[in-house]
This record gives sequence, C-alpha cells and structure tokens, in this order.
Amino acid sequence: MKFDKITMDHGSGGKLTLELIENVFRATPGLDSAILGDIAFTTDSHSIKPLFFKGGDIGKLSVCGTINDLLCVGAKPMYLSSAFIMEEGFELDELEKIAQSMRDEAKNANVKIVCGDTKVVEAGKGFYINTSGIGKIIRPIDGSNICENDQIIVTGNIGEHGFSILNERENLNLASNLQSDCAQLTSLILPIIESDLDVHWMRDPTRGGIAMCLNELCYKRDFGVEIFEELVPISEEVSSISEMLGIEPYYSANEGKMVIVANPVDAPKILDILHSNPLGKNANIIGNITKDHPQKVLLNLNYGTKRLLSMPLVEKMPRIC
Amino acid sequence: MKFDKITMDHGSGGKLTLELIENVFRATPGLDSAILGDIAFTTDSHSIKPLFFKGGDIGKLSVCGTINDLLCVGAKPMYLSSAFIMEEGFELDELEKIAQSMRDEAKNANVKIVCGDTKVVEAGKGFYINTSGIGKIIRPIDGSNICENDQIIVTGNIGEHGFSILNERENLNLASNLQSDCAQLTSLILPIIESDLDVHWMRDPTRGGIAMCLNELCYKRDFGVEIFEELVPISEEVSSISEMLGIEPYYSANEGKMVIVANPVDAPKILDILHSNPLGKNANIIGNITKDHPQKVLLNLNYGTKRLLSMPLVEKMPRIC
Repeated sequence: MKFDKITMDHGSGGKLTLELIENVFRATPGLDSAILGDIAFTTDSHSIKPLFFKGGDIGKLSVCGTINDLLCVGAKPMYLSSAFIMEEGFELDELEKIAQSMRDEAKNANVKIVCGDTKVVEAGKGFYINTSGIGKIIRPIDGSNICENDQIIVTGNIGEHGFSILNERENLNLASNLQSDCAQLTSLILPIIESDLDVHWMRDPTRGGIAMCLNELCYKRDFGVEIFEELVPISEEVSSISEMLGIEPYYSANEGKMVIVANPVDAPKILDILHSNPLGKNANIIGNITKDHPQKVLLNLNYGTKRLLSMPLVEKMPRIC
Repeated sequence: MKFDKITMDHGSGGKLTLELIENVFRATPGLDSAILGDIAFTTDSHSIKPLFFKGGDIGKLSVCGTINDLLCVGAKPMYLSSAFIMEEGFELDELEKIAQSMRDEAKNANVKIVCGDTKVVEAGKGFYINTSGIGKIIRPIDGSNICENDQIIVTGNIGEHGFSILNERENLNLASNLQSDCAQLTSLILPIIESDLDVHWMRDPTRGGIAMCLNELCYKRDFGVEIFEELVPISEEVSSISEMLGIEPYYSANEGKMVIVANPVDAPKILDILHSNPLGKNANIIGNITKDHPQKVLLNLNYGTKRLLSMPLVEKMPRIC
C-alpha cells in the first residue's frame, strides 16, 4: 500500500510500522534494543490513553516497557532517562503521581533514572513520556542462532493489557476483573539470562500482541512459527471480552509478558524457572520453530485445522502504550 | 510561586523548570548528561514550531542538541536513539525530509542512530522527536572543580536560534539574514576535550539563552558569575531584532554554541583552538567566576554600571526547541 500521510495504522506496531521503519527511517526492524558491545540501548515513547488505568499508569508503563526491552537482548537493566512532553493545564498532582510511579517501579527493578527533560506544549496536545534505557549485556541474545524445532514459550496469560485499556477507555463495562498486566520482568527474566540455558531470542509482545511478535520473529527469515491454540494461556476474562469484541487475544497487547525461543532440551528447564516466580506461574510452551512454512505463523486450532496468524495491518487498538 | 497546573513557563528551561525537576521529579538539576563511569547518557524531547526553519529542521535540531549535550560532560558522542510521536495526517514527504536530516547530521558527527520508536496520535496533537544519546567519556567534565577567576568563554554570536524562530513563527519579517545557529559541535569541542587544557564546565546555552546557562552554572554554588557586555559576541541582526522585540539577546536560545569555564592560564589557548574552526570564529572570553556575589550573575554594562542578569522565570519564547 502507498500512503501520502501518516495514519493511525502506521503506529500500530504492525506491518505499516515495519514499512515505515524500513522505507522512511531506512533501518532494519529487528531487536527491541541495540546491542553495542557490552551495553544495550533502547527507546520508547508512550502515548497511552487513559493515563491512569487498572493495573498501572503511563509512568509505570514507561519504566516497565523500557526495562523489558533491555531484558529481551540479554541485558541487565541499569539506567533510564525520562523525558516529558506535557500540555499546558496538566494537573500537577497527576504529574506527581506519575513521577512517583516511575520512581517506585525503577526502585523495584533496581535501576536508576539518571537524566530527564521537560517540554510544555499547548493545551489539548496531550501528555507523553519517553523512556530510553541502558543495560549491561550479560550475554547477547540476538536471534542469530534460532534453529528448527526451537521451542516457543510465553511467560503467562496473553492479551490482558490491550483488552483492559480498550474496556476502560471505551467504557465497555465488560469483564470487570480484567486489568493490565503491566509489570517489569527483571525478577523473572534476569535469572534465565544469568543461567547457562540456551535462549535464542526474546521479545515482549506489546503492540499487535503475540501475533505481531511471532511474525516479527520470522520476518524475512528462512523459518516459520507454529503455535497451538490449546497451549496458549488465556484467562476467562480475556476469552470472554475477545469474543464480545470480535478481536482475537493473539492481537491484543501485553505489557508484562515475554516470548522466549529456546533450545528444545532447555525449554522445560526454563519453564521450571518461570513457574517458580508468581509473574511466570502460567508460563507455557506454546509452539515451535519450523522450516515447513518460512516467514509464516500458523495457529493449530483445537478442532484440528490450521490457519494463518497474519501480521496485523490495521490498527485495532490505537494508543495502548 | 505555587501552581496547581502546568503552565508554559514550566517548559521554559527557567526557574520553574528547575523547581519542577527538584520538587516533582525529585532530581538535582545539574549536568546536561549523566556521567555513568566511562559513558555519558542524555535525553531531549523536541517540540519546536515551526518544524522547518531557516538553518535547520526538527530532525537536525534533535540530533545536534543531543550530541552537544554529550560533549558538555567531556564525552565523545557515539550512539543516538530516535523516537517519533506523529499526528495522524502528517505528510510522509515531510517525515522523509526530517528523517534524512537526522541521518545527514548523524553522519557528519560520526554517530550512529541505533534504535527508535514510532507512535501515532490523533490529528492536531503535534509532531515530536525524542533523541537520547550515549557518549564515551574522554574525561569527565562535571563542574566540581570550578575556581574563582576561572574564565568564561562563549564559542560564538549569541541569541540567533531563539530570535530566528520567533521571527519566522510570528511572521515578524525582521532581520531577513537571521537564521538559526543549529549545529552539532563535535569538530569544535572534541579537540578541546581530547587536549590536556584545563576545562572545568561546559553547557550549550539553549532555552533561556546564556542568562539561564550562567545562572545554572552558579545555582546553589558558593560562587557567582560576572560577564562584560562589550565582550559578548552579538551579531547586528540579533542586536537589532532584540531592540525591536524588547527581549535581551542574553535570554534568547542558541543551538550551536557552547559556554566553557576554564582555568585562566588555559583559556586563551582554548580560544586559539576555537578560532581555528569556522564554528568558533567569533569565540570570546566574556567574563569570569567570582566569589563576590555567590549564586548571582552580574552583567557589566558598557557605560560602567552593573546589573543583575536574573534567572528567567517567565517564558518569553515557548517551543523553540
């Protein structure tokens, strides 16, 4: 597709975002963080609506998102920046709450917020936080050694963040127990990075959900992915809201989960480590790498047929991070 | 002053910004980049209006600003991130131009843009770029060893960026030759960092101009600053627009200048290095550190009297970076 103007779909984290990265920014879509010798470097801007939501706020989200991006490449998160763009008239007590959330979450993760920036724009323009982060590479995990039959693990129930935000923002009043899974995963993932278990790739499945994440995993590669509906952990709340909205949970964002690709021998051991932490109690092996259908993600349905889990093109849930 | 809501003045880079940093973000206003062992880390969000201006655009500005912030603490700029928040309907060809400016300027400075992020928000919300940066500390320059009688150097004509942006944005049609001084200063400043000349502090005088920069230099310190009107390099265009607008050039932003505090023996040698580069051809020693009036910046006027150059409180020129 050819566009003259930016559309919401360019910000979906889906196919159009990838095209923008390749064609306009002339970059290769790849890892969540750059690996620069012994450090990792990443950046994320956050524009979520509403700013305060069940399970977190934009401050917590920004700190967790950046920490998780550093973990993805095998780094121990160390330092964060925080840059605010705020509209005139923004309530100072809301800003205090957001700043406190950031401090609390950084403290929990044992990272330091070391630099910042503040800009003010006209009323009505919104409120945005950029967090960039630096981590210390424990071992680089860059996806270069992914093999056929590698196992794919997801660390918990999928789709909670996206559906929860949509539910609140649109006042749908569905699934009242549902809340965002917003969490930084240092305590869950760092022990795996620090172990000698053979991890080949990690990604936090945010915008576009695990469908986008798995499509990126095999984007322009010589392998594909198959997953099994019966193995994917999904809560009843998410199942129910998914049916009501007609949006599959595979496409709904997560903000406290990780997809891990690992050697088949080590995958069960990784699962054991994950299960020992409350953040990973619902972790499961959901599928594997295959050479049968390169660059495609196939979903094996419970009743025996398979279908394509395509890369999302159209933005179903804008501004969820 | 006590506020309930964010005002434009909180984004001025002046006194209210400092108070926000101290009271809400609970941070110590200090250096432009954090010094973390052998690396420097900095962040800046850019919200300038207009996006394209005489002498540059928001892309060039974002790369230059972050590079200059790294140089300030004695670091060689190495890596940048770029995170975009774009409104729906933004023209793709404008985005292409901005992305190209960023690539060009990064190439000139021999830095790599290694990671990025893209978010889309509703039409009318604006266009913003965050650039964070990592540099390699050559020698840490942190202001801890500033001494009485240290000399204060400015690397060129002041006030050009702020007045130029104001002139264009408000269609004032004043001083048609005036353009932003937007430039990354690697070629000018890196040789000084790499020399053994005794530099004690550096800062790029952006928002709030050299008045803000010099007030920050002595903020909560046991020394003050005095500068001399006759020594401050100012172009005729800036002088003239300054008189017409009734805003002093000391308060107008720069985006391609550096203020350097150095040992009095080495200051003339630093000046020689600066003069050998076109970016520093108008560099001059403009004043010195003094113990006579701690925490105050005094301006010695040409006709023999002195007056206070106070920390700007009210935003005279919003959204100039």
